[in-house]
Amino acid sequence: MRMLDIILKKRGGGRMTPAELDFIAKGAASGGVPDYQLAAWLMAAFFNPLDDNETAAFTKAMAFSGARMDFGGLRGLKVDKHSTGGVGDGVSLALAPLVASVGVAVPMMSGRGLGHTGGTLDKLEAAEGFRVRLSPNHIKRQMKAIGVCMFGQTQELAPADKKLYSLRDATGTVESRPLIVASILSKKYAEGINALVMDVKFGSGAFMREYSEAKKLAQSLVKTARLLGINCAALLTDMNQPLGRSCGNANELEQAVRVLRGENVAPDYAELMYELGSWMVYMGKRAKSPGAARKLLEQSVKSGAALEKLRQMLRWQGANPDLADTPDYLLPKAKLVLEVKSEKAGFISGMDAKKTGQACVLLGAGRSRMEDSVDFGAGIVLEKKVGDAVAKGDVIARLYASDQKRLMAGRAEFYSALSFSRSKVLPGPLIREIIR
Amino acid sequence: MRMLDIILKKRGGGRMTPAELDFIAKGAASGGVPDYQLAAWLMAAFFNPLDDNETAAFTKAMAFSGARMDFGGLRGLKVDKHSTGGVGDGVSLALAPLVASVGVAVPMMSGRGLGHTGGTLDKLEAAEGFRVRLSPNHIKRQMKAIGVCMFGQTQELAPADKKLYSLRDATGTVESRPLIVASILSKKYAEGINALVMDVKFGSGAFMREYSEAKKLAQSLVKTARLLGINCAALLTDMNQPLGRSCGNANELEQAVRVLRGENVAPDYAELMYELGSWMVYMGKRAKSPGAARKLLEQSVKSGAALEKLRQMLRWQGANPDLADTPDYLLPKAKLVLEVKSEKAGFISGMDAKKTGQACVLLGAGRSRMEDSVDFGAGIVLEKKVGDAVAKGDVIARLYASDQKRLMAGRAEFYSALSFSRSKVLPGPLIREIIR
Repeated sequence: MRMLDIILKKRGGGRMTPAELDFIAKGAASGGVPDYQLAAWLMAAFFNPLDDNETAAFTKAMAFSGARMDFGGLRGLKVDKHSTGGVGDGVSLALAPLVASVGVAVPMMSGRGLGHTGGTLDKLEAAEGFRVRLSPNHIKRQMKAIGVCMFGQTQELAPADKKLYSLRDATGTVESRPLIVASILSKKYAEGINALVMDVKFGSGAFMREYSEAKKLAQSLVKTARLLGINCAALLTDMNQPLGRSCGNANELEQAVRVLRGENVAPDYAELMYELGSWMVYMGKRAKSPGAARKLLEQSVKSGAALEKLRQMLRWQGANPDLADTPDYLLPKAKLVLEVKSEKAGFISGMDAKKTGQACVLLGAGRSRMEDSVDFGAGIVLEKKVGDAVAKGDVIARLYASDQKRLMAGRAEFYSALSFSRSKVLPGPLIREIIR
Repeated sequence: MRMLDIILKKRGGGRMTPAELDFIAKGAASGGVPDYQLAAWLMAAFFNPLDDNETAAFTKAMAFSGARMDFGGLRGLKVDKHSTGGVGDGVSLALAPLVASVGVAVPMMSGRGLGHTGGTLDKLEAAEGFRVRLSPNHIKRQMKAIGVCMFGQTQELAPADKKLYSLRDATGTVESRPLIVASILSKKYAEGINALVMDVKFGSGAFMREYSEAKKLAQSLVKTARLLGINCAALLTDMNQPLGRSCGNANELEQAVRVLRGENVAPDYAELMYELGSWMVYMGKRAKSPGAARKLLEQSVKSGAALEKLRQMLRWQGANPDLADTPDYLLPKAKLVLEVKSEKAGFISGMDAKKTGQACVLLGAGRSRMEDSVDFGAGIVLEKKVGDAVAKGDVIARLYASDQKRLMAGRAEFYSALSFSRSKVLPGPLIREIIR
């Protein structure tokens, strides 16, 4: 088999065989196929997109380009959740222990933040000592012991995806739906999960701004996952404004803990957590319907079982479990704080999620480049959200940073994210559609 | 300027600015743009082809990626000829000195053979001592002294084309007409010529098998050359059977010398030589019409002026000028010869040029890979061509090689190139159309 023939076939609109897709994935992982040939193939696949069967086969090929995870001996179904990324979207932090607390196994693989979108791994590391780079053996033992584990992609897992992901970034071939689907699902398939709940965002802060595009991605994800034997549901959720009250790292972790404690600090965040969780528990076969699953989850928060699961996870991954009880005391704080006050009276009609995320980067909470480090204490805590009334001088948000310059830059960017109106404006529904 | 943005623009069908095309060419020449980004852009340009203006600008950009040739002080117009490649197509060997002999300056840059097509540089090197790797200074001095020089592409000339040409080969982006046009013309533009005659082949042994495709390429070459200020004509010529009587290196050089001596050894070869030459002389402004130019050329052969120009060139480039008088005595000969006899009686109705070229490679006269060396004495001399009558046992060709195994492999391949019929079949016209 020659890569040149495979490129020419894709260029001509031909359908790739599983063996050809395997050749590409193995070649990407091993370096046996040079970058320029991979790049040419990716661009050909942009113009002549992979069909559903090719996408499923390519997903499998990338998953098998490295070692798959082995949870031999684990009882029950394994369910993961994946979000296409947003601002203030720290839902996983509370969701994983919550779902695990009712008996579903949750091996949750997460990523780092880049650009205006945050990353679960960064938020977890805001807890001192929390380790996300775990050996396959540790993950296996932890899953067996407590049924939940949150970790970063290991070197061994789907290395072809790692390679192709960075190449796509540099070669203008990111926006190909089948390639996006294969990239997301290859890591999930390598985890060996039984079911997956996708949170596909749309709106200003989402990877797919247009609802129609996000819906097509959701449909493609669900269809391809099914072809791979993974039960899948996708929620289409609004990312025009940030989710919840907190954007950053430590502050998002604190919010997650408070939600698991039953505090009513961020209703939209809690709503999304319960809805995603319901589908995870239902597809994990611990409830007869998503509705019944939701009741189980609410009960688990009330009883403290969810919080206890969080304590176990913190302990297993090297952090102080007391964080579950006194989050404000144990988490890092930024040196400086600035109140952003309204210059107008009326209603907040918009809070651009992308700009808010960019403000977080300026404050030090995010990354412009992958090699940047993150200031765990920096970020934004919102006092108002879209639809809220404001008087002139009312505090809309508090910004946190380690120096004055960052604070000023973040303030300017955040304020530019806001729009106001004289009459009340209601945000669209948070969960717009569920694709099964 | 960022390469990623340029890729995205081409991907979206946007028109490249001269500055962007310059960025690509400079980046390819210097290594400043990585291969995988060049490859992605090339594939995007395959799907969204460069238009005429982009092609001209890209040609210029590649020409300016290195040093252009400088013939300061040279009188008269500089005219070159370029062929898209064929079998037995050693026309340049006689054409360059012939055209120079009537006062047109001919700086002729040529290439090596690869696959079934031969290369002028290999054929020249069949003359012992003939040097084709010349310094820019040598070329300049020789041009001034005798008005003709035949040489290989220097390192300095259009380095971007060199880079992109090999990348296209490996990434399945060869068959893009604008990229082919820019590649051919960038080297010619860097030569600083005033006019160019293109020999665009069609048929089994040509790069473009289909006449319609060859015609489109010819039209595009003429149009783009004009946009660059190079006067250009293109002849569409038949490459379904080999040109002339000889296929190889030494034997093609011998044929060229004999034609310049006025011997009637290969009428089709001579016809193409005179026709191409007429256009070169006419566009070089040494005659009022191609017809008048042809008379000048025929006269130059008759008077011995063309042969004398060949002697001068041989001397200037390190070979023995006596070759012009006793080619059969001075050129290398293969050890073994095999007569290919007809197994049928009737007429030769076809002699597949590609297969004949492949037979030459098997005999040792050509290359499968660029790093292979060439056996100058190997090749094929044809006794019959398409349309000729044959009796059973008649000699159709003589094959030359240095060992028996090669001879047998070449014989099998050459014989498979032949087809026979009971009634006389005439070949199509050699020169089918002239594009201006």
